[in-house]
Amino acid sequence: MRQLLPALLSAVLLAALAMPIHAANAPSTTPEIRVGILLFDGVQIIDFAGPYEVFGAAGFGVVTVSHDAAAVTTAMGLQVVPDASFESAPPFDVLLVPGGDVGAAERDAKVIAFVQARAGSSRNVLSVCTGAFILAGAGLLDALEATTFTPRIAEFAQRYPAVRVVRDVRWSDTGKIITSAGLSSGIDAALHLVQRLRGVEQARSVALRLEYDWQPEGGFIRSLMADRYLAASGLEQAIAWPDDIAMRQQFAIGDEQHWRMRFDVTTATPADELLRRIGKGLDSLPEWTRQAGALRWSSQQEGRRVVLEVAAIPGASERAYVLELTLSVQPD
Amino acid sequence: MRQLLPALLSAVLLAALAMPIHAANAPSTTPEIRVGILLFDGVQIIDFAGPYEVFGAAGFGVVTVSHDAAAVTTAMGLQVVPDASFESAPPFDVLLVPGGDVGAAERDAKVIAFVQARAGSSRNVLSVCTGAFILAGAGLLDALEATTFTPRIAEFAQRYPAVRVVRDVRWSDTGKIITSAGLSSGIDAALHLVQRLRGVEQARSVALRLEYDWQPEGGFIRSLMADRYLAASGLEQAIAWPDDIAMRQQFAIGDEQHWRMRFDVTTATPADELLRRIGKGLDSLPEWTRQAGALRWSSQQEGRRVVLEVAAIPGASERAYVLELTLSVQPD
Repeated sequence: MRQLLPALLSAVLLAALAMPIHAANAPSTTPEIRVGILLFDGVQIIDFAGPYEVFGAAGFGVVTVSHDAAAVTTAMGLQVVPDASFESAPPFDVLLVPGGDVGAAERDAKVIAFVQARAGSSRNVLSVCTGAFILAGAGLLDALEATTFTPRIAEFAQRYPAVRVVRDVRWSDTGKIITSAGLSSGIDAALHLVQRLRGVEQARSVALRLEYDWQPEGGFIRSLMADRYLAASGLEQAIAWPDDIAMRQQFAIGDEQHWRMRFDVTTATPADELLRRIGKGLDSLPEWTRQAGALRWSSQQEGRRVVLEVAAIPGASERAYVLELTLSVQPD
Repeated sequence: MRQLLPALLSAVLLAALAMPIHAANAPSTTPEIRVGILLFDGVQIIDFAGPYEVFGAAGFGVVTVSHDAAAVTTAMGLQVVPDASFESAPPFDVLLVPGGDVGAAERDAKVIAFVQARAGSSRNVLSVCTGAFILAGAGLLDALEATTFTPRIAEFAQRYPAVRVVRDVRWSDTGKIITSAGLSSGIDAALHLVQRLRGVEQARSVALRLEYDWQPEGGFIRSLMADRYLAASGLEQAIAWPDDIAMRQQFAIGDEQHWRMRFDVTTATPADELLRRIGKGLDSLPEWTRQAGALRWSSQQEGRRVVLEVAAIPGASERAYVLELTLSVQPD
């Protein structure tokens, strides 16, 4: 003990490490709380890596689990080797279901059966991003408030009408089951769970250890941004797009009042004609009203007036130009 | 194209995805910018996973590299399979050096030679957390401003005197080389690099895609918290700790003005005697002055008055109690 002491105390006192000494570099062999992380081909890296880091820093044991424990390929290509298969996985207290390309996992009877069984034996279940689709597919979210990755909230509500889908939160805590919004939101939901299980001081210590700007009450809510007023419209289906069009998004940025999107467009259809087709599509949607003499439409949504403008910016040639959409939201 | 179009446009227009269509689910096979991530046993998960997610969402190609391309075991036990070995790694434009348990990597001549060679052929080099120790060990930070994981900043400055160590930033950009503070800071440093290479709109789009509360000018700076005023003292060495003491940190929390740490202590030495020993240690340090009649010391640092209080809280037995240290910082 004497030999180890200076190093340990140095690490603790001077460095002000946020975690228990026994968890400094490796998970405890007998952790009081164990987390099981579901892995599958297409899983999004940060969806499981963020919470893994949070739970590990809190001194929880973490075990990764897949169907057969063979290496999985994440959504961006990184290969990860799970610790255990569905059959060999040890008991755990928290089931973490990350998102990503969940389509196959959501339809995989073995995954659904595992999630149902382990949700039943776990104290808490936490989904990150589109992991909520897997929980919903397993029937675990019926009649509960839940959220998911912003771009897929509308689809989530449509496909799982028994779920009380919410979009104005970074995570939704229903008691046993917590669902978080997209990607980095999983870090906050994991910190929230550490707070519930260990207290706010330990959760804050973990956040400081991770040098993460934690907002315990929720923090940044991507799904409140102004593009929400486009999400439920049938705009893209209403437009007669040219058969040869290729669009590449330059950016999509904004805040709760404004949104701006630019796309590089390549098509034999000239810009004027594309704008005319988009206008015709918007004219066909009952919620949008054209402003006379302009490529500008307005819509009443949630007690606000939303204005959408469409413009084309000349490019290198008649076949390559830029399409810009802007949204502004005003109190009505 | 016609078959794919509705799905693509749905993803782009309605979901307002932040990334180019071609990068929606897999890295481009011919990315314009390729990032090489160094992996090694002991690497911290979030140090590479956060930037991997950022660069992937920006449409950059990402390749992970280790000495022999065999699976590496991260600091918390997760196993990751690199894409390439040092010999087989393709050319890349950005070298990312994550941190974690870097001791062995820092002393590994093959790692240092690889980092030196690839830093030379890369447009940018980015370290995360204690990855800065590897860059410094390779001589790449001499005469440059650099930062690292908050608890190891003092050690970093001591071991690498040729580096101009800074502690008041979330990341330090010296042009070619960027060093970031601990763990989650790597996400911000990666977004900063996307901004430099692609513009602020694309970086903002990526942050929104990740549902991350990005502060382009820097954001949360862990190293400014009040425990910095303890970091450089020789406190733990100055105290005659009991041979049998075991300390487990409950929490370490605070802000720029206050800091509070609690430890569960187990030792045959009673609390009164431990407080006396800690007091004697503090009395021996020239920068701390005892306030008469109290377990309270003050220190002048950086033009501020710092007050440290030490207290014990009775526990379950005489051999198990709680030690509390509090710091408060006042303008002087």
